Amino acid sequence: MHPDWIALDWGTSNVRAWAMDRAGGVLAEASSPRGMATLSPAEFEPAFLDLVSDWTLPDACPVFACGMVGARQGWAEAGYQAVPCAPLSGTPTRVETLSDQLVVRIVPGLSQTRPPDVMRGEETQIAGFLSPNPKFDGTLILPGTHTKWVQISAGEVVSFQTAMTGEIYAALAHHTVLRHSITDGWDDAAFLDAISDGLSRPEALATRAFQIRADNLLNGLDSSTAAARLSGLLVGAELANARPYWLGLPTAIVGAPKLVSHYAAALKAQGVAPLIARGDACTLAGLKAARALWKET
Amino acid sequence: MHPDWIALDWGTSNVRAWAMDRAGGVLAEASSPRGMATLSPAEFEPAFLDLVSDWTLPDACPVFACGMVGARQGWAEAGYQAVPCAPLSGTPTRVETLSDQLVVRIVPGLSQTRPPDVMRGEETQIAGFLSPNPKFDGTLILPGTHTKWVQISAGEVVSFQTAMTGEIYAALAHHTVLRHSITDGWDDAAFLDAISDGLSRPEALATRAFQIRADNLLNGLDSSTAAARLSGLLVGAELANARPYWLGLPTAIVGAPKLVSHYAAALKAQGVAPLIARGDACTLAGLKAARALWKET
Repeated sequence: MHPDWIALDWGTSNVRAWAMDRAGGVLAEASSPRGMATLSPAEFEPAFLDLVSDWTLPDACPVFACGMVGARQGWAEAGYQAVPCAPLSGTPTRVETLSDQLVVRIVPGLSQTRPPDVMRGEETQIAGFLSPNPKFDGTLILPGTHTKWVQISAGEVVSFQTAMTGEIYAALAHHTVLRHSITDGWDDAAFLDAISDGLSRPEALATRAFQIRADNLLNGLDSSTAAARLSGLLVGAELANARPYWLGLPTAIVGAPKLVSHYAAALKAQGVAPLIARGDACTLAGLKAARALWKET
Repeated sequence: MHPDWIALDWGTSNVRAWAMDRAGGVLAEASSPRGMATLSPAEFEPAFLDLVSDWTLPDACPVFACGMVGARQGWAEAGYQAVPCAPLSGTPTRVETLSDQLVVRIVPGLSQTRPPDVMRGEETQIAGFLSPNPKFDGTLILPGTHTKWVQISAGEVVSFQTAMTGEIYAALAHHTVLRHSITDGWDDAAFLDAISDGLSRPEALATRAFQIRADNLLNGLDSSTAAARLSGLLVGAELANARPYWLGLPTAIVGAPKLVSHYAAALKAQGVAPLIARGDACTLAGLKAARALWKET
């Protein structure tokens, strides 16, 4: 297995590498749970070499990386490009490696001055989505730990808005009294009911959340229903806040299939019919676009 | 030190005992961090005897207890009384103890059917507040991990609403990316600005919370300001949801002085002038009321 270059998606909690051939085909994949949060800066290079140890690297093997690997606590800090700009803008950060066999470049993140906001990793997915859809004009939604709502026009990111919905869900489900009443299950009807409730009464979140606990104590509320209800309350409030991003505009959701299906169902209930794309496919397409753009940097 | 009886406030994370004389005076106090969450049911009795080991207990020493000690996972389950009812209603649960020197009774909590809600411990504080204010007709606010908004009329709890604002604050400040940007500090102006923001745009919580992180990354936002801003966003949304409880009604806040002062400042900014009472004094007064009411049960 002799890759021409390596595409690398290194996030907070996972890392994934693709061995690429010259024509942009994938020869092999490797992944591990050694995400950025588990590593000190000096540990990235050995972790990377370990991850790709089954592959025979060429001399000065190009590696294009995106994600939290470029954070201040990552392999090397990659900075931010200020919007409005194309999703791949500025210049990638060249990582100083101990091995002279590697030429590692990290894609810069994007920042916004007012209101203050940042993204790191999603810019690559946006570029990957736009590769086959260069004329897309509307809103990209990238649901996850920190969901991004991104206004796209003429191939540029005009503005964006983060909602830390996924992380708030996890904090409430695992680090409050709700942990006694919530499991990993799901309930579509409860989710859609809660979407409607969260959209119309977002101020009730802290009360509705406790009602989930009380409903479990007093009425034996099912823990899967509880999970979907909490998620719906949060996503409903998020939709209320992001209304200028989806009302009357073309939308596309990019992400993991299950999460994408939840956001798609929530938007469809509001009369919106989003396009859908896989997050990992967009990441890979974006890293290929980064390599094409910055091959000579 | 020979108490006539013992008043006991046993919460999730702390326990506090008062040695009482026959006239209702306090002879001594003892407290420890051995809250309900740290104990199995069988460990409560030895923990209690350890807590009061400096005191000489009378035969069949009456102990009146409130708080999470009466939860399913507590010393003995104390059940709930359904509102509307007086804050001390029903009958206390008599705990089966190994020692025949103790007669321990736990105050029942209160429950509400629709919307489902529960309280445990606050009913005693409410009774304690009403002892010297029997004609109070309006809203009691008991801020804390689970803030209670309680409609009082004719000496009864008519309805109540919980907002788990304090616990959501702690989960976000300690178990999300905000932990890198928030400390235990405070900033009055930032709190009041965020109250106003949270009241008018409660749907923006998940986005405003991430902006705290981005503002810290991009502009070096002070971590005390960040703490007060997050708290204000949450309390502002809580005020929006609790509007029917405070708009145009007499209000009183019962709790720990610092937290009470934050809620009082937030309400004053809305033109409301709440009465203020200390939570621990109300708890003790409520336990005295419980003893007077249930001495013979």
